[in-house]
Amino acid sequence: MAVYTEVTDQALSELLLQFGAGRLVSFKGIAEGVENTNYFVQTDEASFILTLYEKRVARGDLPFFLGLLEHLSARGISCPQPVRDRNGAVLTEVSGRAAALFTFLEGVSVATPNPHHCRAVGTALATLHEAAHDYPARRENALGPDGWASLFAHFADDADRIAVGLQGLIATELDALSADWPGSKLPCGIIHADLFPDNVFFLGPDLSGLIDFYFACYDALAYDLAICLNAWCFEADLSFNLDRARALFDGYQAVRPLSRDERTALPTLARGAALRFLITRSYDWLNTQQDALVKPHDPKAYLARLKFHQHVRSAASYGLDEVRA
Amino acid sequence: MAVYTEVTDQALSELLLQFGAGRLVSFKGIAEGVENTNYFVQTDEASFILTLYEKRVARGDLPFFLGLLEHLSARGISCPQPVRDRNGAVLTEVSGRAAALFTFLEGVSVATPNPHHCRAVGTALATLHEAAHDYPARRENALGPDGWASLFAHFADDADRIAVGLQGLIATELDALSADWPGSKLPCGIIHADLFPDNVFFLGPDLSGLIDFYFACYDALAYDLAICLNAWCFEADLSFNLDRARALFDGYQAVRPLSRDERTALPTLARGAALRFLITRSYDWLNTQQDALVKPHDPKAYLARLKFHQHVRSAASYGLDEVRA
Repeated sequence: MAVYTEVTDQALSELLLQFGAGRLVSFKGIAEGVENTNYFVQTDEASFILTLYEKRVARGDLPFFLGLLEHLSARGISCPQPVRDRNGAVLTEVSGRAAALFTFLEGVSVATPNPHHCRAVGTALATLHEAAHDYPARRENALGPDGWASLFAHFADDADRIAVGLQGLIATELDALSADWPGSKLPCGIIHADLFPDNVFFLGPDLSGLIDFYFACYDALAYDLAICLNAWCFEADLSFNLDRARALFDGYQAVRPLSRDERTALPTLARGAALRFLITRSYDWLNTQQDALVKPHDPKAYLARLKFHQHVRSAASYGLDEVRA
Repeated sequence: MAVYTEVTDQALSELLLQFGAGRLVSFKGIAEGVENTNYFVQTDEASFILTLYEKRVARGDLPFFLGLLEHLSARGISCPQPVRDRNGAVLTEVSGRAAALFTFLEGVSVATPNPHHCRAVGTALATLHEAAHDYPARRENALGPDGWASLFAHFADDADRIAVGLQGLIATELDALSADWPGSKLPCGIIHADLFPDNVFFLGPDLSGLIDFYFACYDALAYDLAICLNAWCFEADLSFNLDRARALFDGYQAVRPLSRDERTALPTLARGAALRFLITRSYDWLNTQQDALVKPHDPKAYLARLKFHQHVRSAASYGLDEVRA
C-alpha cells in the first residue's frame, strides 16, 4: 500500500518509447507490494506493471530476480515477465530509482482461501520448483536461521512490548531450531519464499498467476511448502484448517511427491517458517515509523502459528498421509 | 495516495453482480483522490473505478455529486459516469462505506502543463459551466469566504509555525476580501472548484476527461477560472507564466466570453482562490497526523501566489486583453 516515488507523465512516455511498449493511455500508482513502488500502466498495445525499486531490495539482487522471472516465463509459469528494451536490457532507471517494466497479470487475490484455492497453490508451487530447477543463478536465503538470529538481536530487548514472554520464547525457539535445522539436508532449489495469498492471483476458480518474487532464493523446497502451510491454512481466528492443508499437500504432490525425509522434517520446517515471519513482523512492528505509508502486520498472528506447530509431532497432524510415504 | 478501506474479492464480485458489470478480472487499490478510497476494477466487459466514500465527503452531498456526474455525462462531458445497479441505484455500500461504481476514463495527468494544456483546460471548464447550467440541484460552497474564516479560526494561533507573519497576513486578507467579495454579484452556476492538473486527463495532446468533482458547488463561474489560474499558470519555482494564463483565458472565452464585471473582478477572485488554498492547506499541514497515508501539500506555494495577486491591479496583468471587453 505504497507509492513512495512519483513518476511524471513525461518520464513514463520516454520509458515506453525506450521499451517500444506503445503510447501511454493511463497510469495509476497502485497499492501492491510493500517493498517497492508500483504503477499500473496502460498503453494502446497492452497493460504493464512498472516497478521502481526502493531501498529494501538490494540492487545487486535485481539481475537474479529479473532473470528468474524471465526463466520461469519461458517455462510457462504465469508470473510478471520483464520486458526488454530496444537494447535488450530489462533494468532501467526512472525518477532516480532502478526500475523494470513487466507484463500485466490478470486475476485477483483471495481474502479467504478455501481448499480448492490451496490445492491450486500447492500445484503451482511444485510446478514453480520444477521450472526453476535449471535456473543457473543462486541467491542465499538471507532470512534463514542465521538471518533470524541477527534480526532478533536488533529487537530482543523490546520483544516483550509485543507479547509478554516473547523474548524468551524466540530465544529458546532459535536455539532449538538452529541446532537441528534440516534445510540443507533436504532437496534444495529456487523457492519463492513468500507465497502468501496476496501474491497469488485467481481468475474465477483458476489460479492465473504468481507475483512478488523478491524473497526468492536457494533453499529447501519443502521449506517453501511449510511457508505456504502457514500462510494459507489458518483461519482468521488463527485456528488450523486441516482441509486446506490436505488440499495444499495433495496439490503439491500431484506434481512433485515429497520424500520421506521431507515429510519427517515438515513440523520443524513449519515451526521455522512461523518463527521467520514472527521475527520479521516483530522487527517491522517495532521499527515502523509513525509516518510510514504501510501499516505493519501484527506479529502475534505468527506467534499463534508457532505455538500450534510446537505441539505437532508428525506431518500426519497436517493431514499429510504418512501411509503414502 | 491512499487506500483507507480494504475490499475483498468476494465483496467486489457480489457488487459487480449487483451492477451487472461483468466478471471480475483484476482490481488494484490506486493512489488517486485524497478524500476517498479508489480501486481500479477490470471485468470481462469493461474497466471501472470503485470509489468508497471516507469521512471527509458528507454522505448527504453524494446525491448532488453523483447526479451532477450523470447530468454532465449525458451532455457529453467526459467525466466518471456513475453506473446504475439492477434497481437503478447509483449509491451502494461496500466494506461499511458508501460506494459508487464509475466508468473508467483513459488519460494521464500532466506534471508540467504547457500553454496548449491550459487552453484545453480553459475550453473544458467553460464547456462544463455551460453543460451544468440546467442541473437542478444546488450545493453551497462550504469553502467560500465564511468557510475560510471559520477554518482559519481553528489554526490562527499556530499559523506562524508555517511562515512568520502568516497569521496577520491571512487575517488582513480575510477582512479585505470578505468586505468586498464579488462572488454573488457575478454570473453563478455549478463550478468544479478544484480543477487542478491532477484532475484533468490528457491522451497525447487531447484533453480526455475531468475527474474529482467532490468540491463542486454553486458559485461564481469566474471564480472557477480564478482557481484554474492559480493551479495551472505558475511554474514550479512559483513564478507566473503569462503564456499559460493567456491560453487558459483564450480557451475559456472561445466557449463562454467573460463579462466586463467578471474581468474586473478577476484579480480579487484570484486572490480569494489563492487564500482558499492557502487556508485549507495550512489547516491540513498543521492537522495531518504523523501516521497519515497522505502527505499534505506545502501551503507556502499558495502564500507565494497570494502575494503575487496582491500586486495585480487589473486582469490585463494576467494576459486578459482588456480591449476585447
